[in-house]
Amino acid sequence: MQADYSLGELAVRFGLELRGDPALRVSHVATLSSAGEGSVSFLANSRLRKHLGASRATVVVVDPRDVDACPAAALIGSNPHAAFARIATLLYPLPAEPPGIHPSAVIAADSRIAASASVGPFCVVEAGAELGERVRLGAGCSVLTGVRIGADTHLMPRVTLYPRVRIGARCLLHTGAVIGADGFGFAPDAGTWVKVPQVGGVRIGDDVEIGANTTVDRGAIEDTVIENGVKLDNQIQVGHNVVIGAHTAIAACTGISGSTIIGKRCMIGGMVGFAGHLTIADDVSVTGCSLVSASIRQAGSYSSGMPTVESRAWRRMVAHLRRFGEKER
Amino acid sequence: MQADYSLGELAVRFGLELRGDPALRVSHVATLSSAGEGSVSFLANSRLRKHLGASRATVVVVDPRDVDACPAAALIGSNPHAAFARIATLLYPLPAEPPGIHPSAVIAADSRIAASASVGPFCVVEAGAELGERVRLGAGCSVLTGVRIGADTHLMPRVTLYPRVRIGARCLLHTGAVIGADGFGFAPDAGTWVKVPQVGGVRIGDDVEIGANTTVDRGAIEDTVIENGVKLDNQIQVGHNVVIGAHTAIAACTGISGSTIIGKRCMIGGMVGFAGHLTIADDVSVTGCSLVSASIRQAGSYSSGMPTVESRAWRRMVAHLRRFGEKER
Amino acid sequence: MQADYSLGELAVRFGLELRGDPALRVSHVATLSSAGEGSVSFLANSRLRKHLGASRATVVVVDPRDVDACPAAALIGSNPHAAFARIATLLYPLPAEPPGIHPSAVIAADSRIAASASVGPFCVVEAGAELGERVRLGAGCSVLTGVRIGADTHLMPRVTLYPRVRIGARCLLHTGAVIGADGFGFAPDAGTWVKVPQVGGVRIGDDVEIGANTTVDRGAIEDTVIENGVKLDNQIQVGHNVVIGAHTAIAACTGISGSTIIGKRCMIGGMVGFAGHLTIADDVSVTGCSLVSASIRQAGSYSSGMPTVESRAWRRMVAHLRRFGEKER
Repeated sequence: MQADYSLGELAVRFGLELRGDPALRVSHVATLSSAGEGSVSFLANSRLRKHLGASRATVVVVDPRDVDACPAAALIGSNPHAAFARIATLLYPLPAEPPGIHPSAVIAADSRIAASASVGPFCVVEAGAELGERVRLGAGCSVLTGVRIGADTHLMPRVTLYPRVRIGARCLLHTGAVIGADGFGFAPDAGTWVKVPQVGGVRIGDDVEIGANTTVDRGAIEDTVIENGVKLDNQIQVGHNVVIGAHTAIAACTGISGSTIIGKRCMIGGMVGFAGHLTIADDVSVTGCSLVSASIRQAGSYSSGMPTVESRAWRRMVAHLRRFGEKER
Repeated sequence: MQADYSLGELAVRFGLELRGDPALRVSHVATLSSAGEGSVSFLANSRLRKHLGASRATVVVVDPRDVDACPAAALIGSNPHAAFARIATLLYPLPAEPPGIHPSAVIAADSRIAASASVGPFCVVEAGAELGERVRLGAGCSVLTGVRIGADTHLMPRVTLYPRVRIGARCLLHTGAVIGADGFGFAPDAGTWVKVPQVGGVRIGDDVEIGANTTVDRGAIEDTVIENGVKLDNQIQVGHNVVIGAHTAIAACTGISGSTIIGKRCMIGGMVGFAGHLTIADDVSVTGCSLVSASIRQAGSYSSGMPTVESRAWRRMVAHLRRFGEKER
Repeated sequence: MQADYSLGELAVRFGLELRGDPALRVSHVATLSSAGEGSVSFLANSRLRKHLGASRATVVVVDPRDVDACPAAALIGSNPHAAFARIATLLYPLPAEPPGIHPSAVIAADSRIAASASVGPFCVVEAGAELGERVRLGAGCSVLTGVRIGADTHLMPRVTLYPRVRIGARCLLHTGAVIGADGFGFAPDAGTWVKVPQVGGVRIGDDVEIGANTTVDRGAIEDTVIENGVKLDNQIQVGHNVVIGAHTAIAACTGISGSTIIGKRCMIGGMVGFAGHLTIADDVSVTGCSLVSASIRQAGSYSSGMPTVESRAWRRMVAHLRRFGEKER
C-alpha cells in the first residue's frame, strides 16, 4: 500500500540535487543488490561503492563523492542515510487508525482521552490518565492511574505504563515495554530485606523510541528521566533514578544500574553494563558488551571485554589471567 | 493521597529514638537535598553526612553517629534505611482495591478464588487454579491450570503463570514476568533437536519479589525453586531446576543456567552469567557483569570482567591477551 | 493425567532393545534418584553411572555401555536422551484444546482461521492474517495485519506478531515473545536521529521454538530469517536482518546485532553478544558470556570472558590489564 512519488517531487521535498529524469517514479525501498524498477536505494558508506555499479534501482540516494559511480538516477545530498530515511517514511505511511475507543476497552470515567486518540481492544485506562491528540494504544495496553501521554505518541500492543508515568509527544513504545515498575530498592535488615517503597515517577521526553520488552523503573524518591530524542533498543533495563541525556542512543540488552547519569548524544552498544551512581559525559561512545564500572568524564570512545578465540586458546588466556590475580610473588 | 503522621507516632511505632518535637507531622518522603516541610528523609551512609547540614527535611532518620550533624528533628535507630523503608510504607499505603472479579475476566468454573481477592480486567484463571485471601491480579494476567497463589500476593498487569506454578504469600510480581515456561531442554539427534518435555514445576516461597519481564522456567523433571524472601530484579532469567536460597537478592539482567543452586543471603550484581550445574555457597556476593563458570564454595566477594578504558587502550589490552592465548612459545 | 504404557509397547514404538519384563508399565518420568514405581528415567552421560545402582525406576533408558550397571529394566538405545524425550512426549500429551474462537477475541472479517484452530480469550487477529490447521493461540495474543502461521504452531499467552510476520509449522512460541518489532535503525542528522522505517519482515521456519520474552526484530529492508529447527531460549534479542541457520540452538539472554549471519547446527551459550554484520560458520559452538566481535570462519569451539575469582584477586588482575592498555613503554 505504498505511495508513489516522482524523483522531481522527492528532490524538491527533501532539498536534494537530482541527476536523472524527474518524471521517473518510485514506490518502494530496496537494498542496492535486490533493487528493481520503481525502487529507491541508498549508499551511505563509500566503502560499499562497489555495489553501486550492478544495482538496478531506479534511483540511489548518494553523497556527492559517490555520484559518478552511480549507474542509475541519483538523489544527491550530504547525508544520504537520513535523506533515505525521510523518503522511506514518505513511501511507507503508517496505516491510518480511525479515532475512537474499542468497545472492549476498560476506561475510567475520569480519564481524559482526546477525541482524535485511538484505543485498541482490551486496553485499560485508569483514573486520571490523560491521552493527548492522536495518541494510539495497541491492543492490551495498560495505562495506570494518573499517567500522561503526549500527542502523537504510539504504544504498540501490550505496553504497560505504571501509575503517574509521563510520556512526551511523538514517542513510539514497542510491545512488552514496561515503564514505571518498582526500582530495585530493599534495605537489609537482620538477614532479610525490607522493601523501600518506590514513590518517584518516570518522565520521558518527546521523540523517544523504546524497544520491545525494555523496562524503565520508576524512581525511588525522585524521578527516572529520559530526555528528548533518546532511542532505546529492545530488552534494555533502566534502573531507578537513572537520567539519560537527550539524543542518546542505546543498543539492545544494555543495563543501567540505579542513579547513573548518562550524557547527551552518547552512543552505547549492546549488552553494556553500567554500575550505579556513575556519571557519563556527553558524546561518549561505549562499544558492545563493555562493563562500565567507573564514571567517564571525557567525550570519546570506550571499550572493554575479551575477544572470542578458540576455546583452547581461551583456556590459556584464563590461566595467565589467574596468575595476575595471585598475590604479589 | 499520602497519610500524615506525627514524629511521636513514628518513633513509637518503629521503636526509634526521637530528637525533636513529637507533634511535628510528615506526609511524604524526600531526598536530603530536595526535602521541604512535611518531609522525612534519611541518611544511611555516613560518608554522605555533608548533605545533612543543608537539608530542609522536617525529620531525618539517622544512625546515632550522625545525629549531631542533623539540623532538623531526628529519628534515631541503628538501621536508618530499614526504618525509613518502614516509614515510607506507612506514608504510601497501597491504593485499596475492592475485592471482586472484573466482569471481563474469564474464570474457570472449578477454580477457587477467595472472596477477598481482586481479579482485574482481561484476566484468565484456568481450571483448578487457587487464589488466596486478598490476592490481586492486575489487568491481563494469565493464571493457567492448577496454579496456586498464596494470600496477599499481588500480580501487576500481564503476569503469566504457566500450569501448576506455586507462589507463596505476600509476593509481588511485576508486569511481564513469566513463571513456568518450558526450560530449554532438547536432546541432539542426528543434527536436529528432540524436545524434552518439561514436566517439572516452579515453587516460589513467601515474600518474594519478581521484577518486570523476568522469566523463571519450570523444571525438566523436578521443580525450579525460589525460596522465601528472594528478591529478583527485572529481566532476570532463571533456568530449569535452579534453586535460589532464601533472602538472596539478584540485580537486573542476570542469567542463571539450568540446575545451578545458589545459596541463601547471596547478593548477585546485575548482568551476571551463571553456567549450569554449579553450587554457590550461602552469603556469596558477586559483582556486576561477572561470569561465574565454576562453583563457589566459600562465602565472600567474587568478581570478574574487564574495566572499560579508552578504545585505543582496550585494543592494546586485547593484543596482549591474544598473545597469552597462543601456544606456549 | 499421564498416559500409561508397557515397556514392550515403548520398545517397539521407539526401536529400543528391552532388557526386562515387557508387561511392566510406566506412567511418568523421574530423575534416577527420585524415581519410584511406574517411572521411567534415563542415563545419558556415563559419568553419572554411579547414580544408576540406587535408582528405583521401573525402567531406565540407557546406552548399551551402561546396561550392565542398571539394576532395573532397561530400554537400550544409542541415544538415550532423545529416546527418553520421545517417551516423555508420549507420557505427557498436550492437553486437548477444543477448536474454536473464544467469544471475547477480536477477529478481523478478512482473516482466515482454520476450523481446527483454537483462539483464546482476548486475542486479536487483524486483517489478512492466516492461521493454519490446529494452530493454538493462548490468551491475549496479538496477530497483526497479514501475519501467517503454519499448521500445528502454538502460541502461549501474550505472544505478539507484528504485521506480515511469517511463522512455519509445528513452532512453539512462549509468553512475551515479540516477533517483528522495528529494528533499531536511525540515521544520525545534526545531533539528532531520523528514524529509518523498518519495512522488511520476519520469516520463521518449521519446528522452531522461541522462549519467553525473546524478541526478533523485523528487517530494515529485507527480512530477518530464522530457519527450520532453530531453538531460541528466553530473553534472546535478534536484531534486524539477522539470519540464523537451521537447527542452531541458542541459550538465554544472548543478543545478536543486526545483519549477523549464524550458520547451521551452531550451539550458542547464554548471554553471548554478537556484533553486527558478522558471519559465523556452520557447526560453531560459543561458550556462555562470550563477546563475538569478529566473524568465525571455521567450525569449532570458541570462548571469551574472564573467570570469576575473589574480588581482591580480580582487582589485581584488573591492575595488570590496565598496564597492558598503556602506551608502549
